[in-house]
Amino acid sequence: MTDVLELTKELINRRSVTPEDAGCQDFMKAWLAKSGFENETMVFEDTTNLWSRRGTDGPVFCFAGHTDVVPSGPEDAWQTPPFVATERDGNLHGRGAADMKGSLAAMLAATRQFVADYPDHHGSIAYLITSDEEGPFINGTTRVIDTLEARNEKITWCVVGEPSSTDVVGDVVKNGRRGSLTGDLVVKGIQGHVAYPHLARNPVHQAAPALDELAQAHWDNGNDFFPPTSFQISNIHGGTGAGNVIPGELHVCFNFRFSTEVTDKQLIAKVEDILDKHGLEYEIKWTFNGQPFLTDHGDLLTATQKAIASEMDFDTVLSTAGGTSDGRFIAPTGAQVVELGPVNATIHKIDEHVRIKDLYHLERIYYRLLENLLT
Amino acid sequence: MTDVLELTKELINRRSVTPEDAGCQDFMKAWLAKSGFENETMVFEDTTNLWSRRGTDGPVFCFAGHTDVVPSGPEDAWQTPPFVATERDGNLHGRGAADMKGSLAAMLAATRQFVADYPDHHGSIAYLITSDEEGPFINGTTRVIDTLEARNEKITWCVVGEPSSTDVVGDVVKNGRRGSLTGDLVVKGIQGHVAYPHLARNPVHQAAPALDELAQAHWDNGNDFFPPTSFQISNIHGGTGAGNVIPGELHVCFNFRFSTEVTDKQLIAKVEDILDKHGLEYEIKWTFNGQPFLTDHGDLLTATQKAIASEMDFDTVLSTAGGTSDGRFIAPTGAQVVELGPVNATIHKIDEHVRIKDLYHLERIYYRLLENLLT
Ligand SMILES: [Zn+2]
Ligand SMILES: [Zn+2]
Repeated sequence: MTDVLELTKELINRRSVTPEDAGCQDFMKAWLAKSGFENETMVFEDTTNLWSRRGTDGPVFCFAGHTDVVPSGPEDAWQTPPFVATERDGNLHGRGAADMKGSLAAMLAATRQFVADYPDHHGSIAYLITSDEEGPFINGTTRVIDTLEARNEKITWCVVGEPSSTDVVGDVVKNGRRGSLTGDLVVKGIQGHVAYPHLARNPVHQAAPALDELAQAHWDNGNDFFPPTSFQISNIHGGTGAGNVIPGELHVCFNFRFSTEVTDKQLIAKVEDILDKHGLEYEIKWTFNGQPFLTDHGDLLTATQKAIASEMDFDTVLSTAGGTSDGRFIAPTGAQVVELGPVNATIHKIDEHVRIKDLYHLERIYYRLLENLLT
Repeated sequence: MTDVLELTKELINRRSVTPEDAGCQDFMKAWLAKSGFENETMVFEDTTNLWSRRGTDGPVFCFAGHTDVVPSGPEDAWQTPPFVATERDGNLHGRGAADMKGSLAAMLAATRQFVADYPDHHGSIAYLITSDEEGPFINGTTRVIDTLEARNEKITWCVVGEPSSTDVVGDVVKNGRRGSLTGDLVVKGIQGHVAYPHLARNPVHQAAPALDELAQAHWDNGNDFFPPTSFQISNIHGGTGAGNVIPGELHVCFNFRFSTEVTDKQLIAKVEDILDKHGLEYEIKWTFNGQPFLTDHGDLLTATQKAIASEMDFDTVLSTAGGTSDGRFIAPTGAQVVELGPVNATIHKIDEHVRIKDLYHLERIYYRLLENLLT
């Protein structure tokens, strides 16, 4: 069994709901060992990670990804059971088919073929695989990177298998991601009875103009690769439930997705300026979810564009749109990073699936990438 | 046993947590029957009400009040058990001591003495007692009033025993109350992922300037008897809890306390104008809790001021501040209404109590009122 379709099924049939790995990495380790990889399992708390490498020289080409999947939701709602890989109408159905067990299978198939064809390739091939990408991403890629950095082991080029594509595999490659910064704001007032407003201070009333100013603020213009930085309030809560009580506190949670034109420090300073200007008494807790990263030129990008053009007969589009990915942990080491995987239309949804033809395309794109960079 | 202190204890020891009456009204009925009252129990749904009257002629002097109390909260937090009336340091402790079983006891004691002293008094004496004043006030005073109105039975003067006083009994009398109007607003947005704000519409962002305008709006100037109308947001909720989801709806609950310078219809129109002006897509549910009422002159007010001056040696202060009361249901029939009862410092709190000396003062003030109006 060396077929990308069969490999994808093997992985889908393992119920690896985050942070469970459910044997996926053992399966990958066995496969890679046969091609001369040295496997190193790194367990941090509840998370199993795999660092696997073939070769000791640089440059290091790394496939990165995750074996965990998001929960299936109600299994009854699926047309076929989420953890039983099922072919239907040219698609392979199952949780993780597109995000990202299809990508892992394509990596494995491409790697075995490449090593067979070029046993003496340049540099090294590596895998950085985690089982917590869909979870809190505390004990996954970031800790593997810490370990590699501590021993000065560097990744030169990294392809993350996240489902980057829109209509057909390869039509979009992510060459960066926006940064993400979260603020948890508590505006303090003085609780009281609505009939005695002079004895209270309503934090909702006090915060309203500040929230309006934050919502309307202009943070930057973005640039060629990033849209302008955006601010969104995700949660707001105040009040005891009683209709006659002025709340004592207002809780507001908001999130920035930010470009490379601004830093997290600048955003924090500007938000706190606005809150101060409006005379609010407040506490704020900042959670920094990752710097923006960008791979706007270099061997990896060129090799990726060339691989897609020759396999798919079209030019890929570069994008930095969408959520965060583990690329944010890898890029700061100096690695060039792109994300390239299947169509993302059904990820995290009921009846997730991947086009079977795209799996074969993806295998060959990955193969050409290895060829472009390591021969 | 005819003593106001003993009567208050009898009532406190009955655990009449709203809407329970726990036998308080039966106790009152037995007491009143001995003074020649005719009792009429009116049960509406879960609520027991008492209409009791001595005499058939007008004018009708009515004591109004409630036997129910708010829950005690954690009984352990009380220095003495909330439903065991306990004397300590010149005070009588227990749930309802001040709101308003002390008042009911003072009414009963004053009435028996007055009837004994003036068996052939003018007009009638009546009691309008409910057990849902602290609850939803749907099946209490308002329905008794409906019944009386339907048979054209009118109250001329009404003294509500609510704890009106600030430092010593009688220092403040409420001669009116503000109106109350509640709005439950849902601002509609479009839910989405914070990374794709162009596909969503954030209702918190959209609502912020409208809420600011509402909070800052000037509704009226009040008048000699009422402070300016006030607007307060009591509850605000939006968001799924997830930090990366733009909420689809924002829920805002707010309350007006309004003077006689504005009507509920005018307030509704102005709020909806502001919401419309800001282009919000919204639904709003209005709950009208009562018109403002005012007794700014008349026999009752004069008699009340005179009774307090002769018993207490100070002039009472008229006020319309504070929450709503059942007076709002009685005043629209054309009755003159004042609220006069003990100090309200501990009502609805742990260790509620009333000054024992104030109970005796209150009994004599009520007695003098009867004397001033019915002899
Ligand atoms: Zn993924
Ligand atoms: Zn009360």
